[in-house]
Amino acid sequence: MQRLEIRSTLRNYEVLIENGLLDHLDSHLDPAVFYVIVADDGIPSIYVDKVATAVPNHVLIRFPAGESNKNLAQFSRIVDIMIRQNVKRDACVIALGGGLTGDLAGFVASVYLRGIRLIHIPTTLIAQIDSCIGGKVGIDTLAGKNMIGSFYPPEKVLIDPETLRTLPERHRMNGMAEMIKYGMIADKDLFYRIKNEDVFSSMDYFIHRSLSIKKRFIEADERDIGIRQSLNFGHTIGHALEAYFRYEDLLHGEAVAIGMATIVSDPSVRAELIACLNKYHLPTENPVPMDKLKEFINRDKKSRKDLLKIVEVSEIGTSVIVKSQFRF
Amino acid sequence: MQRLEIRSTLRNYEVLIENGLLDHLDSHLDPAVFYVIVADDGIPSIYVDKVATAVPNHVLIRFPAGESNKNLAQFSRIVDIMIRQNVKRDACVIALGGGLTGDLAGFVASVYLRGIRLIHIPTTLIAQIDSCIGGKVGIDTLAGKNMIGSFYPPEKVLIDPETLRTLPERHRMNGMAEMIKYGMIADKDLFYRIKNEDVFSSMDYFIHRSLSIKKRFIEADERDIGIRQSLNFGHTIGHALEAYFRYEDLLHGEAVAIGMATIVSDPSVRAELIACLNKYHLPTENPVPMDKLKEFINRDKKSRKDLLKIVEVSEIGTSVIVKSQFRF
Repeated sequence: MQRLEIRSTLRNYEVLIENGLLDHLDSHLDPAVFYVIVADDGIPSIYVDKVATAVPNHVLIRFPAGESNKNLAQFSRIVDIMIRQNVKRDACVIALGGGLTGDLAGFVASVYLRGIRLIHIPTTLIAQIDSCIGGKVGIDTLAGKNMIGSFYPPEKVLIDPETLRTLPERHRMNGMAEMIKYGMIADKDLFYRIKNEDVFSSMDYFIHRSLSIKKRFIEADERDIGIRQSLNFGHTIGHALEAYFRYEDLLHGEAVAIGMATIVSDPSVRAELIACLNKYHLPTENPVPMDKLKEFINRDKKSRKDLLKIVEVSEIGTSVIVKSQFRF
Repeated sequence: MQRLEIRSTLRNYEVLIENGLLDHLDSHLDPAVFYVIVADDGIPSIYVDKVATAVPNHVLIRFPAGESNKNLAQFSRIVDIMIRQNVKRDACVIALGGGLTGDLAGFVASVYLRGIRLIHIPTTLIAQIDSCIGGKVGIDTLAGKNMIGSFYPPEKVLIDPETLRTLPERHRMNGMAEMIKYGMIADKDLFYRIKNEDVFSSMDYFIHRSLSIKKRFIEADERDIGIRQSLNFGHTIGHALEAYFRYEDLLHGEAVAIGMATIVSDPSVRAELIACLNKYHLPTENPVPMDKLKEFINRDKKSRKDLLKIVEVSEIGTSVIVKSQFRF
């Protein structure tokens, strides 16, 4: 078993990574606690059953998969069910699934009765190496992604890399884009291992190593006002592409892959990056003219006064945040 | 000017109390910042104008007064306006008004873009001596009060006791119930000053003294899992009465007054309390049979397993939290 301890303002929490972990959940969950299991309807029921079996006192709430359901209506529906089930302050939400479930169920946990217990059990690669730590939870509005949300760390993260076996190929590659990003911004050795080795045969190792990188950034800057923004490498254009395609045709990691390939200017770094992205069948060509993306890029700016912040990688494993006028 | 510094996990903040403070707000607000002024339509426009004049860059959002509007629909409406106005992460929400406005606008600030700046300018007595500190923000659902919310301390609280001059008599008395509560649970001298002196002629002093008591409890137990619950003296029955009357016929302080008078068992303490409540024209007789309140009291319990916690005062200025089976 691999472990990681994450420090945060509200609480510190532990991440456990183990193949087959879902088969002995009873050692990580408390049968005396009432659990609210939240899972989208796209998760294989075998995983839902494993969690439900491990906790006798629970209510299972499923919701339709897809970014368009991470909204106020589903939030409200889940809260209503919890109220009807008489869920109290000592209950614990389990967010079982991908990043979307973590965001939605995590946001519910963060504001239900001003915050109740929360455990993440991520089952997609992108959730296992990225969104399960850092405390960001939230929902979308018609105007944009994650317009409403909180910083709300879970009390525990339980990762079973074996769930990735049932993950569709495209979604596995989707996660690889974020792993490649970690190598690009902070860990040259990791980058070349991803590029040259068989990542999928020792995924627990690569998940741990990825989260270790993210841990450094989020612990140094929990509220995402400084160095944590390095994690946004490739995301400025990535977010704009996702918005342009209305979160339908392009997965987040695919958009980030294009974003990284587009923003890197050094030719040799770019060649290495593109070779690595190619290995994982990730797109590298931007299909949308830059001037059409401008509007979406400006909307993504965090403040009125601030210039746009771009993360630049001019050497693999090293990143800088550059404040610049929009310059495309 | 009276000052108070409140320590909390997320941030420490200052409370300023000064007669006429609203007339020189420019020394407390920053003209370079974009402000979102949230006020219900019951606040005299003179106060709204003073704030709006002090901050050139602002959007003013008003909403209909009344507990029934502290809901997800108004929350959603305010967020939509902010998005349309392009409100960014460096903007600051000003919650201008009573406790309801502080709750709703504070909740908006706590989750808009995962939390933006927040200043409380409370204009009712109950907000000035109670809800403006402690960080509790939230909205109601059909199933109950404050079912959805956060702990989100403001960055500053600005109190001008002169706003109380336009407050209707009944609402001034409503606030006095919470002030009497502070005396009952923690400050015998305060209780007798309230009972014997002309509180309204030196309100800045009494506001400061009230907040100083609340400060001790919230700093010792920010998340309201222990000693902070002493502040709930009179509130178990009070909340049940409010719910019974659907938050229409009885103000919060009036319900708490009845709750305190009902729960105190020592005859001499009870006599003093009732004399004090009478001075401020607050009700002391419970108009609802106890067995009808039971259902509402049980709904107010914080956890499944826990027994009901009752705050008892057997000597003025001293309180204990007693766990008990429902015993009425």
